[in-house]
Amino acid sequence: MPPPHAAIEVVGFDADDTLWHSEIYYQSAQSQLEEIVGRYVDVQDARVRERLLDTERVNVRLFGYGAKGMTLSMIESAIAMTDARITSADIHRIVEIGKAVLQHPVELLPGVREAVEAVTARHRVVLITKGDLFHQERKVAQSGLADLFQRIEIVSEKDERSYARLLEEFGVPAQSFAMVGNSVKSDILPVLALGGYGVHVPYHVIWGLEVVEYESTHPRMAAVEKACQIPEALERLASA
Amino acid sequence: MPPPHAAIEVVGFDADDTLWHSEIYYQSAQSQLEEIVGRYVDVQDARVRERLLDTERVNVRLFGYGAKGMTLSMIESAIAMTDARITSADIHRIVEIGKAVLQHPVELLPGVREAVEAVTARHRVVLITKGDLFHQERKVAQSGLADLFQRIEIVSEKDERSYARLLEEFGVPAQSFAMVGNSVKSDILPVLALGGYGVHVPYHVIWGLEVVEYESTHPRMAAVEKACQIPEALERLASA
Repeated sequence: MPPPHAAIEVVGFDADDTLWHSEIYYQSAQSQLEEIVGRYVDVQDARVRERLLDTERVNVRLFGYGAKGMTLSMIESAIAMTDARITSADIHRIVEIGKAVLQHPVELLPGVREAVEAVTARHRVVLITKGDLFHQERKVAQSGLADLFQRIEIVSEKDERSYARLLEEFGVPAQSFAMVGNSVKSDILPVLALGGYGVHVPYHVIWGLEVVEYESTHPRMAAVEKACQIPEALERLASA
Repeated sequence: MPPPHAAIEVVGFDADDTLWHSEIYYQSAQSQLEEIVGRYVDVQDARVRERLLDTERVNVRLFGYGAKGMTLSMIESAIAMTDARITSADIHRIVEIGKAVLQHPVELLPGVREAVEAVTARHRVVLITKGDLFHQERKVAQSGLADLFQRIEIVSEKDERSYARLLEEFGVPAQSFAMVGNSVKSDILPVLALGGYGVHVPYHVIWGLEVVEYESTHPRMAAVEKACQIPEALERLASA
């Protein structure tokens, strides 16, 4: 194990849309849902994506995150949007769309392996992801990156409470922890609130329920455009 | 923390159908599915439960365990069993049945709290459950038992590999670990195979995919009928 860096000892990486593509598969599923619902109603009037998001916003409190919950929400909202005129053959197609999301290939984002490897040279590195346990484990295994992380933590929610519990388990104070991820809401703000650091690496699309208003000038937060800029951003934050 | 017992240092408890009722809610969901499918076909001929189990056996490799996967499998098999004649209104009923399973009350089995408390007096006690992360966390929280466990581990599969990983994290050899649970397949056999102990507490119903053939005369395995017999069974195993 490399000697821990003075200021930032442990670095956490988010997984979906930080290490590998994910949201594009969910967005593609929603396009396919729009096409199916469009056989019954005018898709403009139906506002398929908005109504699906409304359904998901309610159901996430019961389903948690992940593709199985999205599939059930797609089925539920398709039935509502078509006034129950949708055929069960089309509902079966929605189930198949959900299964395809669960089997999407794990494609690393450009420069990710090199960036994580560079960070491991100076910090202890862990992976912290939320969502469906089974699906996330599968993606971690398929990514080929599992060996780079000292720990792999899959949590049901990424809020202050979850991060506080994890940091206690890691035995590291928040002041020595940085989180790297694409979601300001889930990866950055809760860690900043605890006193830690955040490196925001936006992905080109984001799920509606992850959208948040935020102040981008926090002194312990950095934003970069590409994975290859992560190691330098961490060192800048650590030495500030 | 109490001094660890000489022979058995850590005791793991399963959760569903070991600490609280669970399978009865899944069985009730299946009865309701039978009733819905029975509006379209002869339920005897359709063998609803067998065909659902066949669908689940295939889908569990993609969905993992838990109520959301069961709900998707119920939808898929209901469409197949009715040759896609089922209405989307009835499919919506199936979604609601699945949601009810996710919200079932957490009712402790008789004597469970006292049994776990008695075990904590002589051993380090952890909870090890598999299935849906979000739903399991919710049930643990609602059970009121969370404080009795030093660690709460939710895994995607309870096999030798998972237990070996957990024991390494606990820092305990298998020879000093006992698992208490209702499923011989998931709670007992993998732990025995690693060299640990098992206390089997059967529940009156078990999910088809948990049924397994086994030899009940293993020297490191005990079987008890009620939770109140667990502490004594552990002491017998530990001193054998």
